[in-house]
Amino acid sequence: MKKKLVKTVHFRDIDFSQWYTDLCLKAKLISYSDVPGFFIYLPNGYFLWEMIQKFLNHYLKKSNHQNVYFPLLFSENLFQLEKDHIKGFAPETLIIDKISNQSLPSKLILRPTSEVIFSKYYSNIITSYRDLPKLFNQWCSVVRWEKNTKPFLRSKEFLWQEGHTVHASKKEALKETLYILNLYKKLGKKLLAIPFISGIKTEKEKFKGAVTTYAIETLMYDGQSLQAGTSHYLGTNFSKIFKIQFQDQNSVIQLAHQTSWAVSSRLIGAIIMVHGDDEGLVMPPYIAPIQIVIIPLRLNNSFLLTKVNFYYKQLFKKYRTKLDIQNKNIGWKFSHYELQGIPLRLEIGEQELKNDQITIFIRHNRKKIIINASELLINITELFKNIHQNMFDKALQRMTKNIYIANNYEEFKINLFKKGYVKMSVLANEAEEIIKKETGATARVILKEKLLNKICPVTHKKANQTILFARAY
Amino acid sequence: MKKKLVKTVHFRDIDFSQWYTDLCLKAKLISYSDVPGFFIYLPNGYFLWEMIQKFLNHYLKKSNHQNVYFPLLFSENLFQLEKDHIKGFAPETLIIDKISNQSLPSKLILRPTSEVIFSKYYSNIITSYRDLPKLFNQWCSVVRWEKNTKPFLRSKEFLWQEGHTVHASKKEALKETLYILNLYKKLGKKLLAIPFISGIKTEKEKFKGAVTTYAIETLMYDGQSLQAGTSHYLGTNFSKIFKIQFQDQNSVIQLAHQTSWAVSSRLIGAIIMVHGDDEGLVMPPYIAPIQIVIIPLRLNNSFLLTKVNFYYKQLFKKYRTKLDIQNKNIGWKFSHYELQGIPLRLEIGEQELKNDQITIFIRHNRKKIIINASELLINITELFKNIHQNMFDKALQRMTKNIYIANNYEEFKINLFKKGYVKMSVLANEAEEIIKKETGATARVILKEKLLNKICPVTHKKANQTILFARAY
Repeated sequence: MKKKLVKTVHFRDIDFSQWYTDLCLKAKLISYSDVPGFFIYLPNGYFLWEMIQKFLNHYLKKSNHQNVYFPLLFSENLFQLEKDHIKGFAPETLIIDKISNQSLPSKLILRPTSEVIFSKYYSNIITSYRDLPKLFNQWCSVVRWEKNTKPFLRSKEFLWQEGHTVHASKKEALKETLYILNLYKKLGKKLLAIPFISGIKTEKEKFKGAVTTYAIETLMYDGQSLQAGTSHYLGTNFSKIFKIQFQDQNSVIQLAHQTSWAVSSRLIGAIIMVHGDDEGLVMPPYIAPIQIVIIPLRLNNSFLLTKVNFYYKQLFKKYRTKLDIQNKNIGWKFSHYELQGIPLRLEIGEQELKNDQITIFIRHNRKKIIINASELLINITELFKNIHQNMFDKALQRMTKNIYIANNYEEFKINLFKKGYVKMSVLANEAEEIIKKETGATARVILKEKLLNKICPVTHKKANQTILFARAY
Repeated sequence: MKKKLVKTVHFRDIDFSQWYTDLCLKAKLISYSDVPGFFIYLPNGYFLWEMIQKFLNHYLKKSNHQNVYFPLLFSENLFQLEKDHIKGFAPETLIIDKISNQSLPSKLILRPTSEVIFSKYYSNIITSYRDLPKLFNQWCSVVRWEKNTKPFLRSKEFLWQEGHTVHASKKEALKETLYILNLYKKLGKKLLAIPFISGIKTEKEKFKGAVTTYAIETLMYDGQSLQAGTSHYLGTNFSKIFKIQFQDQNSVIQLAHQTSWAVSSRLIGAIIMVHGDDEGLVMPPYIAPIQIVIIPLRLNNSFLLTKVNFYYKQLFKKYRTKLDIQNKNIGWKFSHYELQGIPLRLEIGEQELKNDQITIFIRHNRKKIIINASELLINITELFKNIHQNMFDKALQRMTKNIYIANNYEEFKINLFKKGYVKMSVLANEAEEIIKKETGATARVILKEKLLNKICPVTHKKANQTILFARAY
């Protein structure tokens, strides 16, 4: 068995779930709160969320989306209107019946998602095709009374953004749905170093209230899939009920077409589960709260310290850099910053000083390189680019390698055991029910591929869809 | 009486309250929600909040503050611990007793402010002087069940930031309290073009749970004061109860000293009430959602449109610029953008085209100037600087002019009638009670000045403080 000198966290291969929780707590991303199921986002964790906000805001604003803020509480009556929607959300929605010291105007909903309150507003202000499109987004938290909670992945309150848009036609609304889906994939590719598989959800798995749900999914290290974001085409489901109508260019009254879409703090869970290793977090360089830590190997050499300070000042202007001159054991420092997943560690000892060089430890592949101090900035820029690409490629390779094909139900079960995705052509819904019950796997997305077989191996009826299955968070 | 051709809003001097609400709604800053007392922050309103966030985040991060996110819901038990604090907040705090479909672990509080949940966390993680200081801040919304609500100024839910810090000594905590107070004043001076008076709150008016509350106040156009932000030195009030203790450098156990501080979406109300006029909003240039609107005076002259497009492309790179080529009445466009308070309107007609000039309408003083098109960018930069300074100076002048001195209670009442602040030396608390009851005015801040008179004109007892009074929002 593998040995570790300093066992800071559980081994990833032995107890993945405990390894994950260890990392969240020990790298100080999150902390438990006084009410079970609620979490405190600590600076290291919240910073990741701020970087995600910055990335998405940049592209959303560029594409004419506008940020807004809609109330946390709204009346239950609104929520009851869309029957499928309420059915989907009712079990986890917090409905406030009674408060201690005040009277309530009516039962209130604590926002689990905001389709209904946006729709109500849109119905008040949209009258003409000239009012369209409306492209609103908000950053907020939502409350869902989940039973089994896990840091970042499932909690009674979580952070997210929710976009709610209104369009004059199905075509435009679908275009928006796909624009956002691609934006989420870009977020994965450029910032999180995470590849996403995307596709349409089955009827059984789609968002209640949507016509079509697109999702991005990705493979965690333990072989389970994580739904990391969704983009819904809502059709006229809400506009019918809330009367979001407009006069078109020919003065004909039309129902508006809507979309909604969201990513949440689950993405932080994905960063940990995709990239982390036995030594701790591995942060992709462009999102890392600290990108570079500089550790002088001697603290009693003033010339060395001057040099180190010089490097720090150079780097600090361009990168999130930390200089650690605490009087602590070097080994402790090394493992402390490895736990935090800081992409680069610069080591400067007397050897380096003499040769005007710097030793760089690269967190993600745990390799050391030596560079000339004069080429520091150029090297860092290049290193980040390579590290990011390598981390993305590694995750992509693992995901691609773990997509299996099943021609029959036995193969399905054997492949599922290998941990990953299994592709099979089935009779949707009916087969999904059986598969979920018997294997725990669910339909992740429908693949736009021709059928692998005409008969569904599970129901023995006519297959109608090729679906990517997996166990999922 | 003054006449307006297009009466878009009520006159400011005639019905200030209605004028204010008109502006909030017609300039699309805010909208009502389905539950009375809750508001929707629309893009124009939320943008102002984002600019405030950006400004404060910049300086907070520079001074080593860290953003976090603490839960919306926490148990009522926590809240009951600090007696003064609960007494201060109880009437407006939403305590959830019962929810429809779930059982509650205990009664839950919907965050009215977060001193207790931060303190609980701090008590778990702070053990040594090495753990200090902790400088956390969060951006979130809070819920307070207010009866009389008004857009941005008072609502059942509002947006704010709340800072919660822990320090090893009183000296450091007080330094933090004042650092933040000054940061808030800088926000006024650099971004909002609003001057703030600052000082300590009286015992009666201070934050319940604080040792000392510093506040920033400013004068609204109608002569009422607005408390726009507070910075509290909490002393050891919370650390005693929550046992936030640490071992100091001499291994002695000490109680930690804390601060908390906040500004809220009230600041948006202040921007409107300080700068707005009869034509609508007047936006300070650095915070304005749109800084420049370009209006071609002819739409059928293709050479003119090409020119206008050229200006737009130049400006768009540097400023939030809008080009309006809608086929609408020019007069309608003018008053529409005046209502929104856009700092500069560029008018380009055939006259301008011929002379290679641009007519610029300056919103805040409603003056027109003509510039050479070749000097456009230089002029805009200079104009913004001047407009910002002029708006600040105008607000400062109005505020300064409306600070009166009262040597007796009669003078106090007469001066209060003039609308503004009245300075008087009184016996705090006792005199405050009487003044509030008889005039509606409250103590805004204590002034660090020597007493104007030895005997309090209200209680006829010995005066102990010189206080700035005003009616307030």
